[in-house]
Amino acid sequence: MFMPVGTQGSVKALDPRELREMGTQIILGNTYHLYIRPGIDIIRQAGGLHKFISWPHPMLTDSGGFQIFSLAKIRKITADGVEFRSHVDGSALFLGPREAMEIQRALGSDIAMVLDECPPHESPPEEMEEAVRRTIEWAERCREQPRLENQQVFGIVQGGSDPQLRERCAKAIVRRGFDGYSIGGVSVGEPESEMLKAIEMTEPFLPAHQPRYAMGLGTPAQIVELVARGVDLFDCVLPTRVARNGTAFTARGTVSIKGGFNKGDLGPIEAGCSCFACQNFSRAYLRHLLNVGEILGLRMLSVHNSHMYLKLMEDVRRHLAAGTFGAFRGEFLANYIPSQKVLLARQELV
Amino acid sequence: MFMPVGTQGSVKALDPRELREMGTQIILGNTYHLYIRPGIDIIRQAGGLHKFISWPHPMLTDSGGFQIFSLAKIRKITADGVEFRSHVDGSALFLGPREAMEIQRALGSDIAMVLDECPPHESPPEEMEEAVRRTIEWAERCREQPRLENQQVFGIVQGGSDPQLRERCAKAIVRRGFDGYSIGGVSVGEPESEMLKAIEMTEPFLPAHQPRYAMGLGTPAQIVELVARGVDLFDCVLPTRVARNGTAFTARGTVSIKGGFNKGDLGPIEAGCSCFACQNFSRAYLRHLLNVGEILGLRMLSVHNSHMYLKLMEDVRRHLAAGTFGAFRGEFLANYIPSQKVLLARQELV
Repeated sequence: MFMPVGTQGSVKALDPRELREMGTQIILGNTYHLYIRPGIDIIRQAGGLHKFISWPHPMLTDSGGFQIFSLAKIRKITADGVEFRSHVDGSALFLGPREAMEIQRALGSDIAMVLDECPPHESPPEEMEEAVRRTIEWAERCREQPRLENQQVFGIVQGGSDPQLRERCAKAIVRRGFDGYSIGGVSVGEPESEMLKAIEMTEPFLPAHQPRYAMGLGTPAQIVELVARGVDLFDCVLPTRVARNGTAFTARGTVSIKGGFNKGDLGPIEAGCSCFACQNFSRAYLRHLLNVGEILGLRMLSVHNSHMYLKLMEDVRRHLAAGTFGAFRGEFLANYIPSQKVLLARQELV
Repeated sequence: MFMPVGTQGSVKALDPRELREMGTQIILGNTYHLYIRPGIDIIRQAGGLHKFISWPHPMLTDSGGFQIFSLAKIRKITADGVEFRSHVDGSALFLGPREAMEIQRALGSDIAMVLDECPPHESPPEEMEEAVRRTIEWAERCREQPRLENQQVFGIVQGGSDPQLRERCAKAIVRRGFDGYSIGGVSVGEPESEMLKAIEMTEPFLPAHQPRYAMGLGTPAQIVELVARGVDLFDCVLPTRVARNGTAFTARGTVSIKGGFNKGDLGPIEAGCSCFACQNFSRAYLRHLLNVGEILGLRMLSVHNSHMYLKLMEDVRRHLAAGTFGAFRGEFLANYIPSQKVLLARQELV
């Protein structure tokens, strides 16, 4: 399953109807961003995030850990949590296992994530080890917190590129028992080969009958490769982020719709695509909209790209069920030409 | 009838489905902007503007006159037309009565406008008189051009604030016989009182059984006042323009949704409103979206504002048919508090 990302309570440029029409089952909300703006009080008053953003369908919230370690200015880390300053206005804030779970209860997410410590990929071994120790400790504390009725809680495995650390962390997290397991500490600036290795060294220790979630990944080709490695659940900002730069995902890789070669192209972004954009508009028109800065242009690329990801997952599920995933994977990867620019765009911080 | 404005081939931030859902019958396209980007060739290849932008419903195109005189750098005006430089890239272009009608044939609009000369409201009398002379001459030439089957052509009356000039121009244009008549030279930076006077001094000379169109107007209150003065057709960028600044139109005037007083307001923009935004989202949520720069915020305000204008025209038509327009007008204007900021926003050039 792929989860479109609604960082600040909105999947960028899309409305809930469009999301449902393209087959979205579940979206992701970011605890850190929502905690800072608009704040939890108003979301609580509204009766939770589902009601606040008009999305009555499943929703996963992260714990805020990733953003604290990537966006915020950290003051102090203790067993109880992190003192940090907001990246928006510099105000002093605190988030620990207790707060992360409390906020996610207020948000009312269907799946909550434990708080983890997510160090940059180039951190020294002793910091990686310390992050794993803290991640296990905080997972334990998160597990002890009250949760909403029917709210699932997923554990997170850290450990960078160190096989022993990954194994130790995975076993410790799984031993504590969660509803699903995430592989964290990926999509943090590491090269693709290292990301794949981190997944490979973690997956064997995660129960096969429970959801496995690769956080913040990836390109369509990466998702297919990760499914082949046993991953079930994905979230990524790429479909909407590159849309705003005029880039569209297709089965053959990405294409810049702004490109001059689309000037007279009256065909859709992708032949045979059933998304609202491809059903209604030509490349030539979308190129014009993007070139003159009309919002409808980036809206329609966001529609197409998100639809492309969701359709890919439908194909993946169908082929897994039919036992033909291996052939599908081979064919998909043979056709899909990865773009270095897109791989880099994934690594911009959110 | 109110026409949402699709300056560059898109009603800003809205898609064709949203426009239809809110009751849009006809939209406006701008010849000058489309002539410059994407150019007429690609629109011709697409089979006309309706197909290019996926709007199979009625469409009016202006002649480009207003933009040439407000945006472009004019090189030379002759009986054949205007030599000017594009405001985008400075390229040398030419537009005359023949070209204006030819482009509008290529665009395939249901209603085409004649080319007029539209001087700024503070122009000296001799320039106003010269503009009227030219406007009549060009109307004559436009009338001689071929037109598409079923394509209507509207004449335009200029004359600024001079009653004799308005009368002379109106009579000369009407004598030549068009399918409808526009009052031009309004919404060109003049105060509201002068705008109303220009309408009042022109209207008596326009046939009552044909459409009368006040170009580029106005606020909801102005539209009601202009209907009372015999105007049938309106277009205005205000609903979508102020939406992008976070301002919403209501029956009581405009309201800044970004305002702190909306922080905890879980009600819709306007109670009782049936638009997609009011049916799905609260002021508190929309305020959040606008404050963090999420596109869905300005999208939803564009939906609400355009819906508000279209709904107002529905009310106007119903009350005109029922013979209760006088009472409706009194009540509407008593409730509607005009905003100086919005009046000024109307006068930004497009």
